[in-house]
Amino acid sequence: MPEITFLPQNITVEINLQTKTNADAAPRSSLLEAARLAGVSVETPCGGAGICRKCLVKIISGEVEVKSGSYKNEKENHVLICQANILDSDVTVGILSGLYTEKGSFDDDINNIIDFEINPGVKQIDLQAAKSNYLDGLSDLDRLTNALKKTLPDNFADIKIPLPVLNILPVKLRQNNGKIKVIYYFDNNILNIISIENTEKSDINNMYGVAIDIGTTTVTLWLADIITGEIISKKTDYNDQIECGLDVISRINYAQKNSGELKRRVLKTVNNLISQTAGENNIDINRIYRASIAGNTVMTHLFLGIIPEYIRLDPYTPAVFKVPAFNSLETGVNINPYAPVSFAPSVGSYVGGDITAGILSTPLCKDEDNSGIILFLDIGTNGEILLGRDDFILGCACSAGPAFEGGGIEFGMRASSGAIDDFKIDENNNIIIKTVNNAEPMGICGSGIISVTAEMFRRGIIDAAGRFTDKMPEKINKNKKPYKFYITDNITLSEADIDNFIRAKGAVFSACRTLLNSAGITFGDIDKIYIAGGFGKYLNINDAKTMGLLPNIAEEKIIYLGNTSISGAYQMLISEEKRRKVSETSEKITYIDLSGETGYMDEYIAALFIPHTDIDLFV
Amino acid sequence: MPEITFLPQNITVEINLQTKTNADAAPRSSLLEAARLAGVSVETPCGGAGICRKCLVKIISGEVEVKSGSYKNEKENHVLICQANILDSDVTVGILSGLYTEKGSFDDDINNIIDFEINPGVKQIDLQAAKSNYLDGLSDLDRLTNALKKTLPDNFADIKIPLPVLNILPVKLRQNNGKIKVIYYFDNNILNIISIENTEKSDINNMYGVAIDIGTTTVTLWLADIITGEIISKKTDYNDQIECGLDVISRINYAQKNSGELKRRVLKTVNNLISQTAGENNIDINRIYRASIAGNTVMTHLFLGIIPEYIRLDPYTPAVFKVPAFNSLETGVNINPYAPVSFAPSVGSYVGGDITAGILSTPLCKDEDNSGIILFLDIGTNGEILLGRDDFILGCACSAGPAFEGGGIEFGMRASSGAIDDFKIDENNNIIIKTVNNAEPMGICGSGIISVTAEMFRRGIIDAAGRFTDKMPEKINKNKKPYKFYITDNITLSEADIDNFIRAKGAVFSACRTLLNSAGITFGDIDKIYIAGGFGKYLNINDAKTMGLLPNIAEEKIIYLGNTSISGAYQMLISEEKRRKVSETSEKITYIDLSGETGYMDEYIAALFIPHTDIDLFV
Repeated sequence: MPEITFLPQNITVEINLQTKTNADAAPRSSLLEAARLAGVSVETPCGGAGICRKCLVKIISGEVEVKSGSYKNEKENHVLICQANILDSDVTVGILSGLYTEKGSFDDDINNIIDFEINPGVKQIDLQAAKSNYLDGLSDLDRLTNALKKTLPDNFADIKIPLPVLNILPVKLRQNNGKIKVIYYFDNNILNIISIENTEKSDINNMYGVAIDIGTTTVTLWLADIITGEIISKKTDYNDQIECGLDVISRINYAQKNSGELKRRVLKTVNNLISQTAGENNIDINRIYRASIAGNTVMTHLFLGIIPEYIRLDPYTPAVFKVPAFNSLETGVNINPYAPVSFAPSVGSYVGGDITAGILSTPLCKDEDNSGIILFLDIGTNGEILLGRDDFILGCACSAGPAFEGGGIEFGMRASSGAIDDFKIDENNNIIIKTVNNAEPMGICGSGIISVTAEMFRRGIIDAAGRFTDKMPEKINKNKKPYKFYITDNITLSEADIDNFIRAKGAVFSACRTLLNSAGITFGDIDKIYIAGGFGKYLNINDAKTMGLLPNIAEEKIIYLGNTSISGAYQMLISEEKRRKVSETSEKITYIDLSGETGYMDEYIAALFIPHTDIDLFV
Repeated sequence: MPEITFLPQNITVEINLQTKTNADAAPRSSLLEAARLAGVSVETPCGGAGICRKCLVKIISGEVEVKSGSYKNEKENHVLICQANILDSDVTVGILSGLYTEKGSFDDDINNIIDFEINPGVKQIDLQAAKSNYLDGLSDLDRLTNALKKTLPDNFADIKIPLPVLNILPVKLRQNNGKIKVIYYFDNNILNIISIENTEKSDINNMYGVAIDIGTTTVTLWLADIITGEIISKKTDYNDQIECGLDVISRINYAQKNSGELKRRVLKTVNNLISQTAGENNIDINRIYRASIAGNTVMTHLFLGIIPEYIRLDPYTPAVFKVPAFNSLETGVNINPYAPVSFAPSVGSYVGGDITAGILSTPLCKDEDNSGIILFLDIGTNGEILLGRDDFILGCACSAGPAFEGGGIEFGMRASSGAIDDFKIDENNNIIIKTVNNAEPMGICGSGIISVTAEMFRRGIIDAAGRFTDKMPEKINKNKKPYKFYITDNITLSEADIDNFIRAKGAVFSACRTLLNSAGITFGDIDKIYIAGGFGKYLNINDAKTMGLLPNIAEEKIIYLGNTSISGAYQMLISEEKRRKVSETSEKITYIDLSGETGYMDEYIAALFIPHTDIDLFV
């Protein structure tokens, strides 16, 4: 039976192929059916007629059969899910609809981010070079150098000019009587010229940059005007590395065979996103003068073409934490070839640039020394947690599994249309559910699972170990294991699902506790909890406390941040100060490897109950 | 009639094709005959049987017919001249035999050059990186950086590591328990890593470099051990740009159509020379860690891919005099990709890096302030002249034409085997000639022309205007113009030849005089004359004085230097100090454009007599 995996949900279903009556035809089954079986939300307003194109997906690996004449984009490997049949092979399908918005964004909070001066570090200056003069002993380069020295307030030790820019200098200097615009940045007191342009064109004052979040599953890019900070376009696509493995460990394994391919694949994704966003906005990619990249430690290594093998081998030493200065030509990012490319620094094998970039959206990166104690949670398949203040930060990573994103849960799904995100049982034992967008219920998202289990626990339907009691037997099927609770006629939550979720919340909670113990403080000392990632968006704090995911902490102390990796990369893009901050702050982080930490296993086991063996933490 | 041009002599002959009796066969003529007609020396010890391979030539452009079965090298376009026939098309032929040695070399003087400390600026250091340690917060790059900081005495602001070197760092650090060798250089107080290597291999301490003289016609490369200074190999080949024009002006014109092609062509020549010399000496080209390049201003521009158009357009402003720091990857030189490539600076449109590199072999580059006044002559088709002391230098270029190299003279040839280089008439009016290598006379080289004309002038056979008198009428054919003097039965010197030579010597002498006038001094103030180029090798000083090429100056004040462009590039290769010197000295040079100099035309006309209208200069 072929296995069909849906991303970004990372849900796999096995499909029984239906044999057609026509004996010649190979057995096949509908891909749309598989998506429904997996509980993956796919909009089909045209009723599966192949007209509305709302159900476009990307076939990431494997092959499907597409009905003849139906729309497809062969270059991107996009097909309409309602027009595709599964054949006898495994397929990985990337859902495209709502890919970005479901990950959480800063759309609403963008004004909150820019509480700093915009200074991307890439500058432009209009120059008037001296007229070329018979026998004055000055070359074109001398005239450029003199004009720069005369016009710039900064002192600098030297000027670096790329050879291709020098090549066109004679022409540029003569096109407009020596009037030119120089795009440059400083590195170590050396003025690095990126580009020399004409001053005639009216659009020339615009300078662009790209912020990129390299995720294991998806890559998100923001194209921004780096002078105003305006975000011009946001786009997300699947990381083309997916075909080489779904998680970082399988990528590391693949890289041992062929690390070059993984680099090529992620660059393909990034460069496609750049050319698409630039093209849609009529922006010349040569006008993109800076890139800023945040990714986890493994993604950063693979992006640079470094074999990440030693990250997972004792003593777990990555090749690089702070990535040195490279330009886009060196890294392969297809923008202006001499644009600087900055990377958010990593601090440990599993606390990478996605987290350090995320810090920029918290007070941990602030200079003020009275921001109090902060807990920063980025919860996904890998949960990363920081605890600290301006003068110390502890960081760790825990493997929560995919339960928070709906993975490993039979009817789990992401927090997209039709996901149950709220669940109540009224005094008459009627179940009242709410779904995202109030759509037809399709499955349960992470916050929904918390809501369902919390309500069940409060009503005594499950016990502290997550087992069904004898309450509401009419909703529970105990005929075979795992026992199931019927949320609707079609959507159930089993004891196995609950177990998976308890282990996920236990991993995160015990990681927090271990950090607190290391710092010699308690939850009561925490002033603010920042939660990153799409997970937090629909979270009910009371339910999270009931389940023991969060301690008893006032709701106003909890702040949701969305995708802080991309918003951090964006801040680094437009602010030299933020790049300095993230670098300085990363140096303050003490990385704690939980697997080597005494007491972590005890904490974990204690957290495998609802809410916890130590009930005092939650009252 | 097809025109056949022979290089490096730059002699062109027109050939009457012989029609074979066989009516089907196209008319053809022997290439060897053409060479003899051109007075180009070609050794054929096997008598033209195609066996000895001594007459190998390179067909630079056009096509020849080669006898079937005869030796040829299709990749290099090498054929045996004795086995080749001219068809009905123009051909440019590059003579290979003795290509290098005829240009003069430093073989004998190499010990004189190295009167300085060898310090190529590229260094190697053996390091022991700290053991990678569980949770010490150090990446591989941190361990490298710490080891460098600990071991190196120098302070440095930053470290630059090329991405491909960072890519292999994790493996290199683990291959030999953290023992590595780092190859690096400093630029602006930043440590630039070129390469990281294993310390196991025994040959690893060798570091190599290449010095390259980019001539308009030929490219010469010296492969050297940059630790000891030992020159491992010397090789010269034709500049592959020749097909795009023989002189710098035609190259500039060609570059307007396609400057990229000229860059590709010279790089092809350079990279062939590198791979040949490295291959012959079993040297890995990645062990070549520095390149040093000297070429005239146009050649330097073309090498860098810069359109040289504005060099010859009023107000004659080159794009660059001092070439900024580039590495070999940027410039396209096929050695270690991160090796620094240095260029000798230019100072004017026609006083380029070949001359400034040449200064390194003269006291003009010395620090001592009592070196006296120096005249530095690099005489070829373009004569470049420097006049100065440690505190001032004047420089100019003059167009002498090809006469000094045997061009524009009917029986002219280079100073190779069979060239008449000395000529006397005894009391009985017998002619006594000496040839290079005492070989059968083939023609007259530059110094030979000086010798012949000086003796004729002393004996009253020609007058001060270079016209034949009535003396020795038995040797002079006055039946048709130009009148000819029979040196041998087959070799003549005509009034037209003498005229060409007088104009050449007049151009050089008047250029010297103009520089002296600018400086307000006379020939009597000159302490030393340094003569670069192959020309000086067989020069008779008395004859040169008689003809008015040189003033009346004591013979011991005149020093011959050979090819100072390549020997200067070599000095720059192995000495940071020499690179600094050549840069500083080039800044002292005031470039004088003779065409704009009052008085130059008067000086030139005065010098068109033997020896000069002002006879006092030569007594």
